[in-house]
Amino acid sequence: MSARVISAADLEPLATGAWILGAGGGGDPYHALLNVRRLYRDGRSVSLLDPEELDDDALVAVVSTMGAPLVGEERLTDPEVAALAVRHMEEHLNRRFDAVMSLEIGGSNAFQPLMVAAVTGLPVVDADTMGRAYPEAQHSSFAIGDLQPWPLTLADIRDNAVVISRAASWKWMERLSRKACTEVGSVAATCKAPRTGREVKAWGIPRTVTRAIGLGRAVLEARARKADPVAAALEHAGGLLLFRGKVVDVARRTTEGFLRGTARVEGLDHDRGHELVLDFQNEFTVGWLDGAPRVTVPDLICVLDAVTGDAIGTEALRYGQRVRVAALPAPGLQTTPSGLEHVGPRAFGYDLDYAPVFDSPGESGT
Amino acid sequence: MSARVISAADLEPLATGAWILGAGGGGDPYHALLNVRRLYRDGRSVSLLDPEELDDDALVAVVSTMGAPLVGEERLTDPEVAALAVRHMEEHLNRRFDAVMSLEIGGSNAFQPLMVAAVTGLPVVDADTMGRAYPEAQHSSFAIGDLQPWPLTLADIRDNAVVISRAASWKWMERLSRKACTEVGSVAATCKAPRTGREVKAWGIPRTVTRAIGLGRAVLEARARKADPVAAALEHAGGLLLFRGKVVDVARRTTEGFLRGTARVEGLDHDRGHELVLDFQNEFTVGWLDGAPRVTVPDLICVLDAVTGDAIGTEALRYGQRVRVAALPAPGLQTTPSGLEHVGPRAFGYDLDYAPVFDSPGESGT
Repeated sequence: MSARVISAADLEPLATGAWILGAGGGGDPYHALLNVRRLYRDGRSVSLLDPEELDDDALVAVVSTMGAPLVGEERLTDPEVAALAVRHMEEHLNRRFDAVMSLEIGGSNAFQPLMVAAVTGLPVVDADTMGRAYPEAQHSSFAIGDLQPWPLTLADIRDNAVVISRAASWKWMERLSRKACTEVGSVAATCKAPRTGREVKAWGIPRTVTRAIGLGRAVLEARARKADPVAAALEHAGGLLLFRGKVVDVARRTTEGFLRGTARVEGLDHDRGHELVLDFQNEFTVGWLDGAPRVTVPDLICVLDAVTGDAIGTEALRYGQRVRVAALPAPGLQTTPSGLEHVGPRAFGYDLDYAPVFDSPGESGT
Repeated sequence: MSARVISAADLEPLATGAWILGAGGGGDPYHALLNVRRLYRDGRSVSLLDPEELDDDALVAVVSTMGAPLVGEERLTDPEVAALAVRHMEEHLNRRFDAVMSLEIGGSNAFQPLMVAAVTGLPVVDADTMGRAYPEAQHSSFAIGDLQPWPLTLADIRDNAVVISRAASWKWMERLSRKACTEVGSVAATCKAPRTGREVKAWGIPRTVTRAIGLGRAVLEARARKADPVAAALEHAGGLLLFRGKVVDVARRTTEGFLRGTARVEGLDHDRGHELVLDFQNEFTVGWLDGAPRVTVPDLICVLDAVTGDAIGTEALRYGQRVRVAALPAPGLQTTPSGLEHVGPRAFGYDLDYAPVFDSPGESGT
């Protein structure tokens, strides 16, 4: 297996791009960025492996920090604990991993495999299972592919560790792991069901680490040359500007391990006189323009700072922010009938069909 | 290792005696009795092994059905699922067990190792970790002995399985396993932290299966010869009659995986004009006579039917029942300073010291 090195100069673009792909969730990558920068300064570095270079029978660890984004802002991910979840899985399987990948490229979990890799020396696979962030286990591409949901390992900072060694379904896996996560404080390091190279190539969302770095670089370069970073992001990602406005109200509660709520955005400029209401469960799920659904999952609903182009997470929304609300196309797999069963509006409790805002699905679909 | 066979004729006495030792909790053993009787009719039988006959390095599975007694009345323990928790533990350890024992002799969990033994062929150790029933993991004699709390396996009827592979403390083990149990419906088969023969001999409460069978036989024989079964039970167990009366009020709620509440008993006969109030968390914790504490954990507080001598569980208490309330002496280990830290009144949230109703601790203490 050959791999390229993720350079120290790639880290900030990765944070910026992953935060946009978080679609409001996944948690602000800022602290994770600092953490991995420190590991790089200490001489560690991480290599990135194209999924096509994985051997069919290679064993890949799928990692994430699980929990509510608001909690993750206060209780940071420790690379040693992130690696501990992977080590517990190796003990449970009595087998070593060959590589590590992220459950979700969106938000701070983009850095989770880098932390594990810096501690363990494993390469990071250039792929994830969501192409963004989603709140629950059954939203992953491996769930859409109906792969085996178990086992899962979960580790916390106190040296508690839980293995979900069998789960009757993806939803049962979500329920059991979420309860354990909530009990240890609504944040925990997890290692999801291990995957073979064959499974990652068949069902992973490929090259999303590279995609996030590219997206972030577009924003940062536009900002450096005083161009419009939001426009640069949308051009790079093939996105659509939906609304310009000011956040005028946020209702937010952390419940059952999730951050749920609603944000109201009052139109400015061309959108004056209109209102966009955004629902979220960690990530933005549905945007309502003047009371009618304008955009829904699985399309990525992104709220960006109007000036810097930085993403604004659901935990950081507040009165007065000037924002641009944009849609990015969902990975193609998520807009198939079985994809929509897992990540369409109905999967989030809405009596709504998916109304695509794009003519064709995203390029990174499988 | 030599062992005697538990005969079919031992099963009803075991149920009757274990139900009294449940101290209100542990769940009515009636359905478990029917279940094991059926296994016996199908040609299975179970051997009983004195703990002193265990090799020092023998590996012993400690089993229980975990949950709220009220739920256990509707969702019965399946011997195959009870054995499944043990098999998951063997897989996790990559080692086979030599014997099986109960977490608690009180209530239906007296039969849990018999079910596992009937399915797996393992012998049952004549011991438990409580000498009665208690609601939580940190109440076991292995917790009092400060033995390692982990790992624990939990299995449900849907083919969900959870391993608590590390726990920062006994209370963390309790919290994590309780949440998993509650999530699968407040009842699950568990296999607690495996023990060596040496640990069982040092910290187990010995010969409690034999004790429960003897106690039950005393009650059943008294009933058969029209003698007073309550008096026979107290004489056999060295217990003390505390109160005669009628249940006049029961407040009960199933919350956080426990059955909690209070029962009021109005005095009859010699106790006319007095009132005994019994608090419970699955098991009876404190008895208040006319407002003052009369009996507390760790002494066993038992409510027996005035006529039959059968135990009445906290989930079956109801208005109008004529009852005898008795105390049985706690195993000696539980009345030591470190024992009381785990199972004294303060461990159940009371600002009360243990006030023993007996001059000397129980004979089955270690």
